[in-house]
Amino acid sequence: MQLHSFFNSSTSYRVRIALALKGLPYDTLPVNIRIGAHRDAHYVDDVNPSASVPALVDGDFRLGQSLAIIDYLDATHPQPRLIPVDPRQRARVLELALLIACDIHPVNNLRVLRYLDGELNVTPQQKTAWYRHWIAEGMAGVERLLARADTGPWCFGDAPTLADVCLVPQVANALRMDCDLRAFPRSLAVYEHAQREPAFVAAQPQRQPDYVA
Amino acid sequence: MQLHSFFNSSTSYRVRIALALKGLPYDTLPVNIRIGAHRDAHYVDDVNPSASVPALVDGDFRLGQSLAIIDYLDATHPQPRLIPVDPRQRARVLELALLIACDIHPVNNLRVLRYLDGELNVTPQQKTAWYRHWIAEGMAGVERLLARADTGPWCFGDAPTLADVCLVPQVANALRMDCDLRAFPRSLAVYEHAQREPAFVAAQPQRQPDYVA
Repeated sequence: MQLHSFFNSSTSYRVRIALALKGLPYDTLPVNIRIGAHRDAHYVDDVNPSASVPALVDGDFRLGQSLAIIDYLDATHPQPRLIPVDPRQRARVLELALLIACDIHPVNNLRVLRYLDGELNVTPQQKTAWYRHWIAEGMAGVERLLARADTGPWCFGDAPTLADVCLVPQVANALRMDCDLRAFPRSLAVYEHAQREPAFVAAQPQRQPDYVA
Repeated sequence: MQLHSFFNSSTSYRVRIALALKGLPYDTLPVNIRIGAHRDAHYVDDVNPSASVPALVDGDFRLGQSLAIIDYLDATHPQPRLIPVDPRQRARVLELALLIACDIHPVNNLRVLRYLDGELNVTPQQKTAWYRHWIAEGMAGVERLLARADTGPWCFGDAPTLADVCLVPQVANALRMDCDLRAFPRSLAVYEHAQREPAFVAAQPQRQPDYVA
């Protein structure tokens, strides 16, 4: 398999974690979204019509959207399962993953921050406040969901799921942007636990072939 | 079952379509997000820790996040299936649904538009340009995915799936905001087709008990 990926993209980071947890070998094909490579005609036409990273290539099958990719990997390589089969357990994992994927990540991604800069001419202080506002609001929801689950060391018990696959890159982003996460001890504990897990370490931005400091 | 819902919330609209397609009776419990009812302590503590609509109540089980709710309904009431079982068909449906749910909807929802107004003091013209920019960019991706699928009258063939359940409320929102959708004929054709489908009609905002013009 091949993964079109950008080292610092947290949606790419999710898929890298899933591939590593499943022990699936793959080649990384870097797509530098900072210079707009995800909008190149050949990439959009031949790889990913939605003009974004990541995109998985599995033989003749090409697929975008990180959560669709991870669902596909779970269907085709079910060990270990990242999305449980039991309807209620599955629902809890998806609820947390989607809170991150729909309510937190999209509002703070690169294209939105660039629009704030380039079109709305916000100040650096306003951009930082924007970023931290959505992190604080969204992470409060994550923390309440984790409090209700009351498990560990992972979000939902003793094995990582799609919820952890989404949470760890999101916490990494928030820390990189100097957000104050002291109000979210459960999320931080999952993040810290993941730093000792080889699959999560292998997927880190700084370990990717396209990494630049 | 009970659905905590707001008539004009397109994530609530998605779940209403899914419930109607499956023929599942439910009570609507309105949550007026315009006055912040989704942040009330009793709602957050007792119903939905992520402080948003929709939320499904199925006996003692309470669940937030529209796509998690629809996945749960598909697992517990599989007729008709909205998310296919075959891994590749399933991946295509999820890819399109997640493009809408992650890349289009969150950037234009009520809380973000209010932040633009209240914190960044944008002009009405800037707010309209923001809305239309993300619609145009995201719908272009939707349209390319539909062109690759080359099916009809629904997104993926002759029965509605989760992709249609997400696309129809998104198109309805864009039309309500006077976005120019002429560049997206495949999406408009699916939307028009849905206007003749009773389950999609029953789920429309103007048919909900909490509707106000």
